[in-house]
Amino acid sequence: MQPNKDAALATDLYELTMAAAYFENNVEGRATFELFVRNYPKNRSYLVAAGLQEAVDYLLKLRFEEEHIEYLRRHPNFAKVDESFFQYLKRFEFSGEVWAMPEGTVFFTKEPILRITAPIIEAQIVETYLLSIINFETLIASKAARVVDAARGRGVVEFGARRSHGPEAALLAARASYIGGCIGTSNVLAGYQLGIPTYGTMAHSFIMTFDSEREAFERFSKAFPSDPAFLLDTYDTLEAAKILASMSVRPYLVRLDSGNRVELSRKVRRILDQAGMSYTKIFVSGDLSEYVLDEVTRKKVPIDSFGVGTELVTSRDDPALPGIYKLVALEQRGGIIFRAKTSEGKRTIPGPKQVYRLHNSQGKIQRDVISLDVETQPPQMKPLLTKVMHNGQVHSALPTLQEIREHTKMELKSLPPRFHRLRGSATPPVSLSDRLEQITRTLWNSAS
Amino acid sequence: MQPNKDAALATDLYELTMAAAYFENNVEGRATFELFVRNYPKNRSYLVAAGLQEAVDYLLKLRFEEEHIEYLRRHPNFAKVDESFFQYLKRFEFSGEVWAMPEGTVFFTKEPILRITAPIIEAQIVETYLLSIINFETLIASKAARVVDAARGRGVVEFGARRSHGPEAALLAARASYIGGCIGTSNVLAGYQLGIPTYGTMAHSFIMTFDSEREAFERFSKAFPSDPAFLLDTYDTLEAAKILASMSVRPYLVRLDSGNRVELSRKVRRILDQAGMSYTKIFVSGDLSEYVLDEVTRKKVPIDSFGVGTELVTSRDDPALPGIYKLVALEQRGGIIFRAKTSEGKRTIPGPKQVYRLHNSQGKIQRDVISLDVETQPPQMKPLLTKVMHNGQVHSALPTLQEIREHTKMELKSLPPRFHRLRGSATPPVSLSDRLEQITRTLWNSAS
Repeated sequence: MQPNKDAALATDLYELTMAAAYFENNVEGRATFELFVRNYPKNRSYLVAAGLQEAVDYLLKLRFEEEHIEYLRRHPNFAKVDESFFQYLKRFEFSGEVWAMPEGTVFFTKEPILRITAPIIEAQIVETYLLSIINFETLIASKAARVVDAARGRGVVEFGARRSHGPEAALLAARASYIGGCIGTSNVLAGYQLGIPTYGTMAHSFIMTFDSEREAFERFSKAFPSDPAFLLDTYDTLEAAKILASMSVRPYLVRLDSGNRVELSRKVRRILDQAGMSYTKIFVSGDLSEYVLDEVTRKKVPIDSFGVGTELVTSRDDPALPGIYKLVALEQRGGIIFRAKTSEGKRTIPGPKQVYRLHNSQGKIQRDVISLDVETQPPQMKPLLTKVMHNGQVHSALPTLQEIREHTKMELKSLPPRFHRLRGSATPPVSLSDRLEQITRTLWNSAS
Repeated sequence: MQPNKDAALATDLYELTMAAAYFENNVEGRATFELFVRNYPKNRSYLVAAGLQEAVDYLLKLRFEEEHIEYLRRHPNFAKVDESFFQYLKRFEFSGEVWAMPEGTVFFTKEPILRITAPIIEAQIVETYLLSIINFETLIASKAARVVDAARGRGVVEFGARRSHGPEAALLAARASYIGGCIGTSNVLAGYQLGIPTYGTMAHSFIMTFDSEREAFERFSKAFPSDPAFLLDTYDTLEAAKILASMSVRPYLVRLDSGNRVELSRKVRRILDQAGMSYTKIFVSGDLSEYVLDEVTRKKVPIDSFGVGTELVTSRDDPALPGIYKLVALEQRGGIIFRAKTSEGKRTIPGPKQVYRLHNSQGKIQRDVISLDVETQPPQMKPLLTKVMHNGQVHSALPTLQEIREHTKMELKSLPPRFHRLRGSATPPVSLSDRLEQITRTLWNSAS
């Protein structure tokens, strides 16, 4: 997925007014910003990092075109801004350094997942776009991990394009869902652009086009003779199953989209089995969430896989990840000055940081330590942020989507059971290093 | 906003498998589909139609490129599909007729807001994209109308790009928020591409870049001498206000982003007034929703305008509009056959429809009647669906964004007070015409 050609303007106006003010005042030092999540969405105890690929693609391609600059020149806020600023925008490229947790990494609140060091204007301008992409993909990858958990081994297909927040959100949601553990998506664009497996059966409208369900099933089989998949609930699910059982088609799969699907799946299974169609899979969809799946899969039900749409692609129980992007340090006067926000309830931890993780002997996450990036930690502590960009260029190749997906699987396995609970929020197993703790206290106290 | 070049594939796979099955079976008759909302999101009593412009742009440009077709040829589901289907896709253009409620129209559940009549494959393939765009923009325009209501005359600026579901969702949300009554957005791209007024102040990071707030304010004023806008809550809001009051800058606006903003706005107002800065506006942001605004604006508070982000652009209290797109009629054997889905809890109303609205003598909406499109209604009943496309081309020019926004204002004024309540759902003032009621009963009963 490539960024829109106008992506440079996909930002909040204040990023550009601040840029103009920095420029006017010759504030040119390098600044470090970090992206982190202050609080979990409802019922979350961990998050799965996602969106880095799109973030890097954006940083690589970020340019202000002549039309963009012309728009800003005519903008009332910029009426008195000197032409030299617009000339600067014309030359603008991202030249900074980026450290980030690889996509698929499990992380907790307060931990920086992305750290950018660049001339302050560059680091500032990219804030809005990076937050939008990373907040959303991380939100959905994390939600998908919960839904997949609740499916207890059955496959989950992302099915939500029609309820996503526009076609691009649908594509990003398909990607993030795949990272989070879904086996595929209904979204063809995600197959075409990202190589994600795509799945589909038929809609009620197909059945309704013909005079009878039998005719609809026959017609569909004619086009898809080897592995037809049929939707059973247009009129009456059990009647439809009986019609199918009396036919000579060999359905690969049947879909149940409404009604009491636990009960219906058992009855449909029986009808199919009696007709010798034990090879036919039962696929269930329609208003499913991790909460519903958890209930359903606790029982013994003959459901082979699920399609989850709205709840997944909008993260319906909490549809926004409150990730923020904060200034933590400034290079000036030959040194690095740490910065923190100290306003009530919104205090931040100063300094460029690294996150170290300790696993126990069973390979489970024991604890994370947030330390200054210049500190070293014992060798058994593994650093989570890796260098992704250097001088505005890719530093080391990013993993493929398949590799990311495998990484997520390992990460989720390393997460102790209490974090996998679907309700409540486990305390993040996170502390600050002694040195960072001390610096933070000093800075917070000096402000109050 | 123009559709992505790969928009043809921004669809669910089943739309294309159904297309192949229709093609294989020579099902070529024209079909009519309608888009409507079965149930309101939480606490909604009306909706504001939006997204038609993007829907029409998509229908006009919809083409399958050679690479798209090649992807489908190699897709396992299409392994046995005849080459003639791919040749058909190569020629594919939308040739149908579209009727729709103009954007900004207030509507209720069950009412069709878009009706498409086209050869069935065309009408089917476009389902996913149309739902995605129209569901989302309608969701946000409706949410914005609530937020603007709750602001009681104060301006509301959409501020949510960083929490939107990706950059495109941010742009669509800015557009829909403007339709719903916001005065503008922080999103520069929405200004550039759609001409929406854009607003911005500064971030905490700007303040934190300098050694003191005084210095930060001075530096910003240097770049923006005529109407600087300052953020006050980086460290201590009242201290910052006092610093500003002691300076010679003439702030156009101050922003309060955290803490008890009712109390702070009063204290800041007093500080500014005592310094002779009664011209300085107070702008409040940070975790605002229509529910918070309603509380705040019931009191006498010196707040001039609001910035609303996450809650608005994600419609956080209910982030998905369950709009659906259903087959209602088929032209075949020289006639029109009505269709309805009769499955439990998901029944649909058959036949191509028109919605008529009756206003009372005060210009308020009295009731809507859904009737068959071929029925006529008394002249005081105004039809809401107008013809938008004919033979795949625009039938009459769509309104500008400004015109849409004016239309929304009039529409919201015509809505009786009970529908404006922020909690609960008023009963939709909607009934079926006698003839439609009778046809629907007959069709539902014949199925059971």
